[in-house]
This record gives sequence, structure tokens and C-alpha cells, in this order.
Amino acid sequence: MEFMTGIREKEALELSALLDRGRIGQKVKVNGAIHAIRHMGDVAFVVLRKREGLLQCVYEENTSGFDLKDLKEAETVEAEGVLTEEERAVGGVELRLTGIRILSVPTAPLPLPIGKWKLNTSLEAKLNMRSISLRNIRERAKFKLQEGIVRGFRDFLYGQGFTEIHTPKIGAKSAEGGSNLFKLDYFHRPAVLQQSPQLYKQMMVGVFDRVFETAPVFRAEKHNTKRHLNEYTSLDLEMGYIDGFEDLMEMETGFLQYTMELLAKEYQKELQILGITLPKTKQIPVVRFDRAKELVAEKYNRKIRNPFDLEPEEETLIGQYFQEEYDADFVFVTHYPSKKRPFYAMDDPEDNRYTLSFDLLYHGLEITTGGQRIHEYEKLLEKLCARGMSEEGLTQYLDTFRYGMPPHGGLGIGLERLTMKLVGEDNVRETTLYPRDLSRLEP
Amino acid sequence: MEFMTGIREKEALELSALLDRGRIGQKVKVNGAIHAIRHMGDVAFVVLRKREGLLQCVYEENTSGFDLKDLKEAETVEAEGVLTEEERAVGGVELRLTGIRILSVPTAPLPLPIGKWKLNTSLEAKLNMRSISLRNIRERAKFKLQEGIVRGFRDFLYGQGFTEIHTPKIGAKSAEGGSNLFKLDYFHRPAVLQQSPQLYKQMMVGVFDRVFETAPVFRAEKHNTKRHLNEYTSLDLEMGYIDGFEDLMEMETGFLQYTMELLAKEYQKELQILGITLPKTKQIPVVRFDRAKELVAEKYNRKIRNPFDLEPEEETLIGQYFQEEYDADFVFVTHYPSKKRPFYAMDDPEDNRYTLSFDLLYHGLEITTGGQRIHEYEKLLEKLCARGMSEEGLTQYLDTFRYGMPPHGGLGIGLERLTMKLVGEDNVRETTLYPRDLSRLEP
Repeated sequence: MEFMTGIREKEALELSALLDRGRIGQKVKVNGAIHAIRHMGDVAFVVLRKREGLLQCVYEENTSGFDLKDLKEAETVEAEGVLTEEERAVGGVELRLTGIRILSVPTAPLPLPIGKWKLNTSLEAKLNMRSISLRNIRERAKFKLQEGIVRGFRDFLYGQGFTEIHTPKIGAKSAEGGSNLFKLDYFHRPAVLQQSPQLYKQMMVGVFDRVFETAPVFRAEKHNTKRHLNEYTSLDLEMGYIDGFEDLMEMETGFLQYTMELLAKEYQKELQILGITLPKTKQIPVVRFDRAKELVAEKYNRKIRNPFDLEPEEETLIGQYFQEEYDADFVFVTHYPSKKRPFYAMDDPEDNRYTLSFDLLYHGLEITTGGQRIHEYEKLLEKLCARGMSEEGLTQYLDTFRYGMPPHGGLGIGLERLTMKLVGEDNVRETTLYPRDLSRLEP
Repeated sequence: MEFMTGIREKEALELSALLDRGRIGQKVKVNGAIHAIRHMGDVAFVVLRKREGLLQCVYEENTSGFDLKDLKEAETVEAEGVLTEEERAVGGVELRLTGIRILSVPTAPLPLPIGKWKLNTSLEAKLNMRSISLRNIRERAKFKLQEGIVRGFRDFLYGQGFTEIHTPKIGAKSAEGGSNLFKLDYFHRPAVLQQSPQLYKQMMVGVFDRVFETAPVFRAEKHNTKRHLNEYTSLDLEMGYIDGFEDLMEMETGFLQYTMELLAKEYQKELQILGITLPKTKQIPVVRFDRAKELVAEKYNRKIRNPFDLEPEEETLIGQYFQEEYDADFVFVTHYPSKKRPFYAMDDPEDNRYTLSFDLLYHGLEITTGGQRIHEYEKLLEKLCARGMSEEGLTQYLDTFRYGMPPHGGLGIGLERLTMKLVGEDNVRETTLYPRDLSRLEP
């Protein structure tokens, strides 16, 4: 009987194993994709692309043991050669080729110049050929950083006693009401895709005290802007036994601090490739919604048209204001008007036109909405009633409150927006693997 | 200006802080839900439920400073008291109450006896009151272990150089063809929910070499069994530069070994609550599909009705066989018939009626399907053509192969099934937070 006993070490080495210098002068094997071939007369550079970066291989006509003509870009190969120190190469080493084994051969020339440092191609073309455009080192690095953000979110919250949950995306009704829902047929019954895990995560606070989820959400909004998607990844958390909604802002600040440290430590290579300076998270200013409107109105000579709404231009100016006045990359805007928040938001007991809620702006773009929730059954019913909403489809949610719930609140972070701002892009599609918008449903 | 600077320490302590013995004899504060009240004459035990477990608090009529009648089960409170050593209490400490602050009050008596050790309630009732039934300590523990599995999967794969990706769940067409798709209206265009991230993760192998995703998948199958769900969480990985599909089985064995160690280390409490013995993962037997059929036919005196199909009863018997003969909890069954595998599966060059693929059975239940994929463009086209499939909707997928792809393969693990087997349940709904099946679309 044959048995599997775990991972065996492979003969072909990873880049990190080659770069640690212990193998200089040795004959080694390494596999990868031929990222670029640069002819220099009798010598040629064959650049291998691996998950950890690029490796310069040197082809020499009489010593490499094969014909350079047999190689072409986009082939995948297993290369053999002598590892040599070379200051001018990335990582300080190169591989002097002594043999090559071709693993696979492309059938067409590459449609995009992915071997260039910057891929000067339209967003449209990049998205239409996503699996090719991302082979460019800079394009790829954005999504490696995105991984770091999600990883930071989860690791930080595990450390803070949160439990990860998986809530259903198909439901009988919207969790939160509202018309922006995708509808589907569920075995001849009408169903919708959830626009957030809101009600589920609240219900789970009564079980685990602190929960989080990192999963797709779906919004059938007809926005056609650079910052909206119809499907995106939401980083959601909900926590019980809070003393106030400040606890939530502190938790988010802690997440940002933890994640920027993680990126600086484990994703340095990608930060360098993209030339990114990490944002400042040591202290994040907090400003009331109405005060923020006044501040930008005064400084930038603007009229306040609607005191109960924040226009995108105002958000941008609030970001600018706090960058100029406090050197801040982030700002929490608190006490959003009750009318603009969902039924479960807790109103400010001191002025019920406002809520105990907040948005987090990153360079003037909303990347988080959060706040304290109503935790008393009667108050929830009152608010539903005041809004003329029905209890239909909310039975188990409301029952959860009948049987006792701690004071609690939570927040949701748009992963693609946060990534976009971090890498300095201005269209959220740049940091979405396969965006879904009004016009884009494939690939 | 007010600033957020990160998490501040709270006065109310978590259970782990109380159990470390340093605070014995001190007055402390702790919050939680009143899980049970047990009257013992002049004294009463008020059991607090916290995310880390239960805490026994002692009420004494003349010294606690409040009236026990003011307390009831399911209230959330902040309790104050003196931490005292008490061998008979869980964790070896109890809190002698000196005061209480009520945070929230239920408006109805609990519909389920969650304070009992075992919640002897029907699955139907548990699911109908999920947010209440999970307040039972044993019910809750199952989902904490589920977290450990996902965490183990991700942490292990990060360590193996995998990149986490987020692929879209709404698409124009099925990734893999097939009729078991939920259909929805996407801004007046027909769309479907993806039944797996298969084609996306393959495309991303050309970018990151190794990728994984942990996300929901959707299957409109009309199965009504204990092991099928219409929405579940899939743990998917795909890796390039493999020498054969054995590399995938080794990777999965490595994941299982890593995860069982993680559970033993960080989830010991939950393992004890549920009385779980972790399965053996040191060596996992590997058997060919056709050989497995013969083995169980011989040993259990069964006829082989269809040599190209595996019936659920046969899977169960294969599990039983390897448990009896090799003391094995898991078994890899390899070389599934080509007809039973999707178009992208690589046929065995030695006998193209079979594929270089495998399932992993856990106590006789399939929890993983995986295998090597075709990585050559022409061979993919051939197979599509041989199956009479159209290239429609596969353009970018196929193009990815035109521009070069390494030999690769991958696998998908059903999270709820793996959890079910681990905790010894026999219905996958027991280990699904909010199951979606033929009859259940809410809550």
C-alpha cells in the first residue's frame, strides 16, 4: 500500500532559497516562466518569473548546452545552472545556465508587453486580458498587497478574540431592506443575494461576543463610478459589550496599525515594486459630521447645501482638510444623520436626528461604515415602525433581541477600495481581480 | 481635536485574564450573558457565558449587595466581585459577587434550554432558532472548530507560498458548464452564480504560481441528502509546476497535519467540550479507484455493478475497509474515470479512460475532489471538442493557455463536510451556520 506522508522537498528551488547565498557556486534547478529574453551578442539574459520575483539567468552560446533559439517568452521551463554572485542583478545573484527542460510552450505571441516595468495599457485592455496583464510584476504586486490586508484583518481579529463566521449569501429576503438587490430563482422561490452579512453577524454576537467575516457582498446599484462595484469583498466585524461606538473606531485603528506593520514586515518587496509609502495610523482624527461640513465650508469657501448629506466632493475636501491641517491620511467622521443610516443604527440619545455611527475616510474616500446598533427589542420595533417597515423576513433576527443581546456594534470595510487607496490607484477596478459592474459580467 | 490611537485596555476582564491566577483575591469586573442561575438556598450560582467559556459567579444574600430576584437568565450584565480559588468550578476559580450592572434585559423566556450540557433538540428546531441554539456551549464549539480548520488551511498555504485570491461569484456563464446553476438577472442580462472558482484559480496559477480561495460556492442541485447543501464554503487551492498529481495529495496531507496540530494547540477547549479525538494524518493510504472497488467487493461480498461509478455505499465501505485494514481515518482514491470528471481534467496517458485525479474520503465520505489539469491549449480544445462543448464563455480561460501555462493541478475541500466528520455529526446542516437546501432559504 502506498501512503501520503506530507510534503517532500523538491529538487527545483524557490527564489528565497536561491537568494540566501548558501548555494553560491552550486549547480541548482529552478522552474518558472520565461518573462523576457534579452539578447546581448554571444550572451543573453533569460529572465524567469517566479511567485517570489524575477531571476536573471545567463545564456552563453558555447557553455549552456542548448540552443537559445529553442527558447521563447511565455514558455515554462525547468532551468539548470550554476548560481553566481552578480551585483547588478536583482537580488544579487544570477544563474549561469547549463541546461533547460521545457515544461510547456505557448501557441501565440503575448498580446501585452508584460515584461516591461510599467504596463502602459488601458484599464479596459488589462481587464479583458486579466490573466495575462497580471503577469506584469507591478500589476501582480497590487494583489499580493491585497492579500496582506485581508490577512492582517483576520490575524489581528483572531488575536482580539473574534470568531470567524460564514453566513449565507442567498436569502429569502434582503437582510436590510432596500431595493438594490440582485434577485434569483431558488427552486421556483424568489430569493436575493445578500448585500451585507449585517443581520447575521449581529445575531452571532449573542453567541460568540465578537465575530468577523471576509466574504463577497452583492449590490445591484446602478452607479457607474470609479469607486463602485456590484460585487465586492467586505471585511466585516461585529462586537458585543462595547461601552460606546468609540470602541469600534479603536478596533479599526488597531487593525490598520497591525496591518501596516504586517505589510512593512512581510510585503516589503511589493511595497518597493510599487513605490508605496504606508499611510500614518498612529493617531486618526475624529470629527463630527456636522462639524466636518463646517470646517470645509469655511476653509474652502463652500456653501453647505444640505446639512444632512455629504457629497462626494465634500468627502474629498474633508480628506484634504485633515491632510493639510493634521498631516492625517485617515479621518473618522462621526454622528451621521439618522435618515441616512439603516433601521438598526442606534440614534444619539442626545439628539436623535443623528446616530452613534461613523465612516472612515482614507484620503477623502469612504472605506468603512460602522456604528453602534440598537440592542433592545422594543427600540428595534419602534424604529421599524417609525420607518413604516414590515417585520416580515426579520422574525429570527428580532427574536434574537427578545432573548437578550449585549450592547454591540460593528463595521464593514470595502477591501478593493482600501487596496486602491493604498496602492494609489483612482479606479477600484484596478484592484479588483475580476470586477463586476454595469457593463462587465465576464470573464 | 480628538484622535483614535488604537485599542485601550478595558476594566472588564476576559476569561483568560481571570484564569491565569494572578488576580486571586482581587476585586474584578467581568461582563457576559447570564447563562444559568442555580439556586442553592442562601447562596446561588450565576453562570456567566463569555466567548472563552463559562464563569461561575456566587451570589450570597447578605454580601452581594443586590437582590437575586433582579437577575434572570439571558440578561447581559457587568458583574463585580472578588476572584476566588474554587477547585470544583470550571477553570478552578469563581467570582464572589459584590455588585452587578444590568446591560440588557430579555423580553421573553428562552425557547430552548441552552444552559443544559447537551441540547436535546431536533435539528429543525435548532436551525429555526440558530442564534439561540448556538448559545449552548457544545453547539457553539462546533463552529469554533470550523474556524480552526479554515485558519489552518490559510496559514499552512501562506507558509507554502500560496497567494490568496478573491474571484467573482456572479458570472455570465458557468465556469465549468453543467446545468446545476442558479440563474439571476444582472441588469437585464442573464447571469449565473459560480459553482466553483475553478477556471479563475487556474488562470491565476499563470500569475502567482500557487493560489487559494476560501469562499462560498453555489450548486442548484436537487439533492435532498444529509451531505448536500446548495451553498457551501469551499476551500480551494491550485498550484503550478507540479511533477504529478501526487504533489497535490501531499499538499493536502500537509494541510491536514498542520490543521490537526493547530486544533490540538489552540482549540483544545472545544475538543474537550465535544470529546473529540483528532483523526490520524501521519500517513494516508492511496488506492486506485478500480482497485478500491475490487477490495470492498471481495471483503464485503458485493457485486461491482458499474465499474465506472462509485456509489455512496461503496464510498462508505472503502472508508470502513481502510479503517479496519490500515487503521486509517482518511484514504485517497485515485484515477477516477474520465467520464466522471470535467473537461479540464488530465487523462492518464497510460489509459485515457481514467484521469490523474483523486478524491479524499474521510470515514467514507468524500470531502475533496482534486487532480491535475490539462495545461496545453491544443489538448484543452481537443477535449472540449470531443465532449461536444462550445468555447463560448471560455475565451479568456482558453487564451490563458495560448500564452503559456505551467503543469498544474488543484483541489477543493467542502468545509462543512470536513467539520461534520471531525465533530462526529452525520448531517452537514449541523455544521453549517445557516444551511441552504431545497426547503431552507431563511433565516
